[in-house]
Amino acid sequence: MGAIKNTQIVLANRPVADIDPKTTFKFQQVSLSDELGPNEILVKVLFISLDPAMRGWMRDVRSYIRPVRIDEVMRSADVAQVIKSNNPDYKVGDLVRATCGWQEYAVLKPSEDLVKIQSFPGVSPSTYLGVLGLTGLTAYFGLFEVGEIEKKGGPNCTVVVSGAAGATGSVAAQIAKHVFGCRVIGIAGSDDKCEYLVKELGLDVALNYKSKTFFKELTAATPKLIDIFFDNTGGDILDGCLRRIAFKGRIIVCGAISTYNEAVPKGPAYYSALITQRARMEGFIVFDYAEKYGKATADMSKWIKEGKLKSRETVIQGIENTPDALVRLFKGDNTGKMLVKVAEEESKSKL
Amino acid sequence: MGAIKNTQIVLANRPVADIDPKTTFKFQQVSLSDELGPNEILVKVLFISLDPAMRGWMRDVRSYIRPVRIDEVMRSADVAQVIKSNNPDYKVGDLVRATCGWQEYAVLKPSEDLVKIQSFPGVSPSTYLGVLGLTGLTAYFGLFEVGEIEKKGGPNCTVVVSGAAGATGSVAAQIAKHVFGCRVIGIAGSDDKCEYLVKELGLDVALNYKSKTFFKELTAATPKLIDIFFDNTGGDILDGCLRRIAFKGRIIVCGAISTYNEAVPKGPAYYSALITQRARMEGFIVFDYAEKYGKATADMSKWIKEGKLKSRETVIQGIENTPDALVRLFKGDNTGKMLVKVAEEESKSKL
Repeated sequence: MGAIKNTQIVLANRPVADIDPKTTFKFQQVSLSDELGPNEILVKVLFISLDPAMRGWMRDVRSYIRPVRIDEVMRSADVAQVIKSNNPDYKVGDLVRATCGWQEYAVLKPSEDLVKIQSFPGVSPSTYLGVLGLTGLTAYFGLFEVGEIEKKGGPNCTVVVSGAAGATGSVAAQIAKHVFGCRVIGIAGSDDKCEYLVKELGLDVALNYKSKTFFKELTAATPKLIDIFFDNTGGDILDGCLRRIAFKGRIIVCGAISTYNEAVPKGPAYYSALITQRARMEGFIVFDYAEKYGKATADMSKWIKEGKLKSRETVIQGIENTPDALVRLFKGDNTGKMLVKVAEEESKSKL
Repeated sequence: MGAIKNTQIVLANRPVADIDPKTTFKFQQVSLSDELGPNEILVKVLFISLDPAMRGWMRDVRSYIRPVRIDEVMRSADVAQVIKSNNPDYKVGDLVRATCGWQEYAVLKPSEDLVKIQSFPGVSPSTYLGVLGLTGLTAYFGLFEVGEIEKKGGPNCTVVVSGAAGATGSVAAQIAKHVFGCRVIGIAGSDDKCEYLVKELGLDVALNYKSKTFFKELTAATPKLIDIFFDNTGGDILDGCLRRIAFKGRIIVCGAISTYNEAVPKGPAYYSALITQRARMEGFIVFDYAEKYGKATADMSKWIKEGKLKSRETVIQGIENTPDALVRLFKGDNTGKMLVKVAEEESKSKL
């Protein structure tokens, strides 16, 4: 029994535009009692997931989840390890996925949000924040539920994915390509990422949106227009894809990372293409499909085993670098899932 | 046998932004032979329909219909009267709805586009360009097919209609209110129009978007947020409604008249509300539902008889004023359907 020194990062100021790692967040050291109430567990955070959605959680606006409060620990999904347990379902050494936030330790009660996971050879527990976590499920439900890819997919279906080298985009692009056999064009922000998309992930075409001739290239790459656009970025890329949208095309509005740091974002000027092409633009939140997580995770695990789904991670070391890592996520420095590694998993025998 | 002097208005220059009645169009007098080929009819145009969509037809871009060519008679739907016939299905004196364009006379062959209509007491033939024409059908299919009002409608459903005093908006608002019993808020551009919406059409609330406190008023008028937004205007009104969109709300993108004259329109900055509210924005074109016109027209006629659907027209006299009338449509000078009256219907005995 005693107290643990716990480093936390709290939201200090709501950013108006860009996040400033120095003023937006504040570090604090608190003392966390390891005395547990009934069914509680004490966990040590191993990985923090960094997600574009975090920018929305910092805004004080009506959304799908309440804003993070000022002086509250910044919210995040994490992979953590049980180091003390007052709950027979969780043993010391077990790995869990939970919303611990940006801190080193947390005391958790059972909730929908606390899920036991397994580490096995070749699969890092961090995968449960990426392909096998909400990130992967987001790609899955966007394509299936909003894009209706089961109805529209196939070799005659052109799918464009923005943020295609990112955590969600890379999963969406691979499902469209390797599970449904669509013609898939990935959009990313560097030539290296584009090479990764074509050579490693097997997409048909990858386009660097920073190229001066990007819109020409997009036009050339979509001779039969765009049936499904899985959009993670918004901004000019969304506008360009609206100009190429096909009759009855679908725009899956998954994210709009290019606009999240703008006080008043620039909207899609060519949205009236929705009228002329009878197209649909629809947003979604992965949480709405919780009932179907089981089937989705089984499908995804199968596709990983079959080699249809590959993934990369960009791992930043040390909790002290978390604010910077978030800024780098918005700059597009990551390929695949952006994570902060806070601590090493320990073998059960050592705990 | 002989030739008729026919005044035509042709597209002279594609406008980049605003239409200039003096340079965008050109008047010409042509001589039209009244010798008819097999099954042809000669008609005299009585009414020209003016529609926001016309701005799109002047653009040289990929759309649902080919652009009007330079030096081609400007396209429009018209009500016309048969004055000579070589077709047993059409007698002299019959009224038709057809795409004659901006001219006094036309020779027509049977086509999908040529429809015989009836004039009866209390119903002007111009109604077939408004409530009983494509305008009314546009409101109908927007609500039914895109808005799924049969599933969502009822007293707990809040519907907002922009351009609510316009031809399509007024029909959409009345169907939502008097057929489905929704709470209906109409948005229009003058206090007179707002009075008309509440006192004559029976809407719950009408808001003048030119009011300085419009967004406050919109917020107050939608305490349960907006389940269905039938949008004819786009622009800031669309942005305001996105900020008030309800969970799983529907935005029926019917038109974007506020943006049609802009070279590069301002897109909806708050479209990312589609994500947080899992909302859908979808466009449509009435032509896609041609198979269902019969049922729709029967429903609409019934609602007119039951007093559920009222309509007004803004009628400009004289073909020479057609370009001006179109400019006035974009200024919002009309209440209800905007028409140009070209000629009087003549009694069959006189023809």
